[in-house]
Amino acid sequence: MDSKIVFAGLFLVVLAVGVGASDPELTTDFSAPAGIDGNYFKSTLLKGVPVASPNFATVTGANQNNFPALTGLGVSSALLQFPPGALNPPHTHPRGTELFYCMQGCVDVGIVDTTNKLFTTSVCEGESVVFPKGLVHFQINRGKTLAKGLVGFSSSNPGTNRLPNVLFKSGIADDVLMKAFGVGKMTIEQLKNAKFRKLLALPL
Amino acid sequence: MDSKIVFAGLFLVVLAVGVGASDPELTTDFSAPAGIDGNYFKSTLLKGVPVASPNFATVTGANQNNFPALTGLGVSSALLQFPPGALNPPHTHPRGTELFYCMQGCVDVGIVDTTNKLFTTSVCEGESVVFPKGLVHFQINRGKTLAKGLVGFSSSNPGTNRLPNVLFKSGIADDVLMKAFGVGKMTIEQLKNAKFRKLLALPL
Amino acid sequence: MDSKIVFAGLFLVVLAVGVGASDPELTTDFSAPAGIDGNYFKSTLLKGVPVASPNFATVTGANQNNFPALTGLGVSSALLQFPPGALNPPHTHPRGTELFYCMQGCVDVGIVDTTNKLFTTSVCEGESVVFPKGLVHFQINRGKTLAKGLVGFSSSNPGTNRLPNVLFKSGIADDVLMKAFGVGKMTIEQLKNAKFRKLLALPL
Amino acid sequence: MDSKIVFAGLFLVVLAVGVGASDPELTTDFSAPAGIDGNYFKSTLLKGVPVASPNFATVTGANQNNFPALTGLGVSSALLQFPPGALNPPHTHPRGTELFYCMQGCVDVGIVDTTNKLFTTSVCEGESVVFPKGLVHFQINRGKTLAKGLVGFSSSNPGTNRLPNVLFKSGIADDVLMKAFGVGKMTIEQLKNAKFRKLLALPL
Amino acid sequence: MDSKIVFAGLFLVVLAVGVGASDPELTTDFSAPAGIDGNYFKSTLLKGVPVASPNFATVTGANQNNFPALTGLGVSSALLQFPPGALNPPHTHPRGTELFYCMQGCVDVGIVDTTNKLFTTSVCEGESVVFPKGLVHFQINRGKTLAKGLVGFSSSNPGTNRLPNVLFKSGIADDVLMKAFGVGKMTIEQLKNAKFRKLLALPL
Amino acid sequence: MDSKIVFAGLFLVVLAVGVGASDPELTTDFSAPAGIDGNYFKSTLLKGVPVASPNFATVTGANQNNFPALTGLGVSSALLQFPPGALNPPHTHPRGTELFYCMQGCVDVGIVDTTNKLFTTSVCEGESVVFPKGLVHFQINRGKTLAKGLVGFSSSNPGTNRLPNVLFKSGIADDVLMKAFGVGKMTIEQLKNAKFRKLLALPL
Repeated sequence: MDSKIVFAGLFLVVLAVGVGASDPELTTDFSAPAGIDGNYFKSTLLKGVPVASPNFATVTGANQNNFPALTGLGVSSALLQFPPGALNPPHTHPRGTELFYCMQGCVDVGIVDTTNKLFTTSVCEGESVVFPKGLVHFQINRGKTLAKGLVGFSSSNPGTNRLPNVLFKSGIADDVLMKAFGVGKMTIEQLKNAKFRKLLALPL
Repeated sequence: MDSKIVFAGLFLVVLAVGVGASDPELTTDFSAPAGIDGNYFKSTLLKGVPVASPNFATVTGANQNNFPALTGLGVSSALLQFPPGALNPPHTHPRGTELFYCMQGCVDVGIVDTTNKLFTTSVCEGESVVFPKGLVHFQINRGKTLAKGLVGFSSSNPGTNRLPNVLFKSGIADDVLMKAFGVGKMTIEQLKNAKFRKLLALPL
Repeated sequence: MDSKIVFAGLFLVVLAVGVGASDPELTTDFSAPAGIDGNYFKSTLLKGVPVASPNFATVTGANQNNFPALTGLGVSSALLQFPPGALNPPHTHPRGTELFYCMQGCVDVGIVDTTNKLFTTSVCEGESVVFPKGLVHFQINRGKTLAKGLVGFSSSNPGTNRLPNVLFKSGIADDVLMKAFGVGKMTIEQLKNAKFRKLLALPL
Repeated sequence: MDSKIVFAGLFLVVLAVGVGASDPELTTDFSAPAGIDGNYFKSTLLKGVPVASPNFATVTGANQNNFPALTGLGVSSALLQFPPGALNPPHTHPRGTELFYCMQGCVDVGIVDTTNKLFTTSVCEGESVVFPKGLVHFQINRGKTLAKGLVGFSSSNPGTNRLPNVLFKSGIADDVLMKAFGVGKMTIEQLKNAKFRKLLALPL
Repeated sequence: MDSKIVFAGLFLVVLAVGVGASDPELTTDFSAPAGIDGNYFKSTLLKGVPVASPNFATVTGANQNNFPALTGLGVSSALLQFPPGALNPPHTHPRGTELFYCMQGCVDVGIVDTTNKLFTTSVCEGESVVFPKGLVHFQINRGKTLAKGLVGFSSSNPGTNRLPNVLFKSGIADDVLMKAFGVGKMTIEQLKNAKFRKLLALPL
Repeated sequence: MDSKIVFAGLFLVVLAVGVGASDPELTTDFSAPAGIDGNYFKSTLLKGVPVASPNFATVTGANQNNFPALTGLGVSSALLQFPPGALNPPHTHPRGTELFYCMQGCVDVGIVDTTNKLFTTSVCEGESVVFPKGLVHFQINRGKTLAKGLVGFSSSNPGTNRLPNVLFKSGIADDVLMKAFGVGKMTIEQLKNAKFRKLLALPL
């Protein structure tokens, strides 16, 4: 085996994927460059974020990709802002449970487990709801005022599969989608061309 | 503090908790009742399984739910059988990576990562493909002969979110789906009423 | 499913071994009793909590002890309320990193690493700070208005060692304390009799 | 403390360390270089492998060493081919449980637990058997036709201690072996000179 | 699926295996029954243990099986006593690394990695040697005085595969052993009948 | 293999991200540079260490920082020497449980759990005591002869928060300490100026 090539490759990996290191259980106090001060542990990423869309939740994440102090510490967060009527579409986080705390307004939420059972509830200001790791879930503001939530994740980089985008905006072939959803080509084309929210560059 | 009361409380929790077993890293050789013999470690679950559908993959799992010797050992498997044209619809495994080995025929596969990038490839007899933990993926037999795959999972109970079912057969409200997919009520009704495969009782 | 019988058995084990609950990585979607609905995933523990003390932070936790849906999911949270001048005294969480989001006002914080280096910073509304797992840290509101924070932990039950209490209210012998702190018996007595905040019944 | 010096030291360690990669729980979707396509997730390592020996199983692995997409994903596989009479000698996998699926023919298997209890069973086409992590096990084809198995491991690099080789072909001193096995020097010499299978360059 | 039967089975498991719970990462301070005092955390298992054999190391373990306070804490220990000439035969610990500290005398040690490479060294009073998880290793006292070692394991229940016993005292069939070791039936019989140390009831 | 090139690449990453070392579960036999021999697995760090102080325990660690073979193996150790009257002051190990074996003399120990309950016991030659991960604990030699202990940790780098130093020698502001301990500025000054033991350069 030519291990030189393999590891040259691995090096590229790291460079390309970004951090790409593994997260679990540090054996140091934290991950940090030399010469840091207390501000290294602080982030303003979630501060003063404008609402970006009237129809969909504005999701702003603070995780190891943009807040390096979290690297290896197994926790991250995000701010979710829902104008009246806004939806955070069905999605999964492949690497983390989400604990959602409602800071303002109310949202209706749904979780579907792996037996295909739907659980729904509502949370208003001061209430919390948990979305177990890897399960499909969504939130919608059916109220008349802005709703805000702060979430904690059980991973420093939970990732997101935003399902409408994954299914209809990633380029999956029509025959797969037609068979998967039991509909004809026209319906699939309609779904592919629908103007739902584009995926964020830095997904949550 | 009266720790007796605490533990009484914990007991109630446990009573309530239901299944909730945790898997990771045994501190015994294996999990087994007294008096087992070598057959405890053997399973015939994947043997002689008939193909159940012409349109969809017949997926038969052997995991800690039906093969208890796997409990706590971090691995499980499944047999996938694809008649010509059959599809294993887009899905995720919330608790495990899937390593698929093609035993017969060929299947085309797709993986979508959390940046919404689609990766496709094909595997024929003797070839393997890996579906990383939690990512959306699918397989389809576009050939003219039966295809068979054997998969190993990195969990004794990986679970499955079969996305068409999760989205359109679990009872998610129409307003959520209309907004999520950017289509009207009629299209959502069409998707909800489509005759795609019903979810298996014991999902994989 | 007759889960009652199962857990009667488990209970015997638990009673014998002691508490012995382990958290890591479920191999089920979540931990829950049969017959739950969506409200199982919701908690109102952090809602409308009154401020309990003018001098110390009012810390209210939502973790697997009082919010069972979190069991095995690796995340929990707490609400911290700081009247002007209030302190959350130096403490550690033996089982989790804390990601603190400031919802209102400002707090000054400090972290001491295992080389005894102190890091300080301040966070105001919308800003976050991370306290790595197991390190000593504190927060103080030196402002003139109420400050509030919401924290996410990387464990479903992080635990807290509130150091002034641990050291001077747990009954550690005088000779240990005198030698440890390099002071005489009178100073130790003074510290033991000081009227700092009593430990909460359910510590965070 | 001068943390710059510490990190310089850590760097030297890393330089020295060699392979030393850790596997557990990625915090990215997968490990990959930039510019990959779907073929990155595919391997042909187990395809069309000739049987290499009439007496011993031909074991061909696909793991993170030769199939880099598996890195950090906690699963790997191997193809085992047994001509009639062929043996896979007693061995352990220090880093993984093995789930063996018999694709063709039959093999007799044995597992010895840490109380020295032997468990035996047989698996034929379509049947599975699990070898718990770290336990000594073996397979033998006592039938008259070629047997084939496909195994899934609970690690991306399980490793193998092939015991006859480890004990008698690694150079362990005679006095250790004589005392360990309670036999004389002549028997040890006989065992050391026996023509059993040489260890593979890339062990499984 | 008849889950009642399954879980009745699980209950038996728990009862039979005894503790058999999983070890990793407690979410409580420790595992303990109500009403414990400080002595719960103390063990005298390794105190005043007589040397049991002139030829083999007397190995006495303190792990979660006999020192329940260790349950879930990821560490255990053992005392090893080597009269002059005594051997601790080649063995593996399937669930833990061993860090051996020599308290008295000297021992020669060997480690064989999964590429079949033998590493040897010697440790005398005050020196340490590490045996990585799952690798075959042994210790022998080639000196003229009693040697003693204290070991720490990276698991609360590491387990031991004592290889001469596993291979020749567990009942593995002759054809397997003859082929595995490349010797005839007479040599195998000789090895099976050899009077090396019997396996301890509670293996280490 | 040209591992130098590999790690030059890894080094760049590390420099960029910070330290980022992770310990858990190797997927190789061990971490080691090319060309090592058996002495790589050996350490003399705990041999012949002089007692450094009459008042405080002399604590000498052997962990991944100074014994690189331990990297990724989840275990480390330390030698503790207590002249008559010497104390190992209240401290926590943020990343590991400590299993203390008394090699000579006797020590009195204390553990405080997260409900602020103090547990005390004594261990003499041959006896062991466990200090669960992250809990505050201390040891004192109230006897008239030197006491020695050897400890095993459940981490290759457990770290130490030596509480008197963390609290009164790290520079925490007076208002925090006064409020935390309920005493006046003069007492805090007294504690800050007390001549208790300085923190070791390489903490344990």
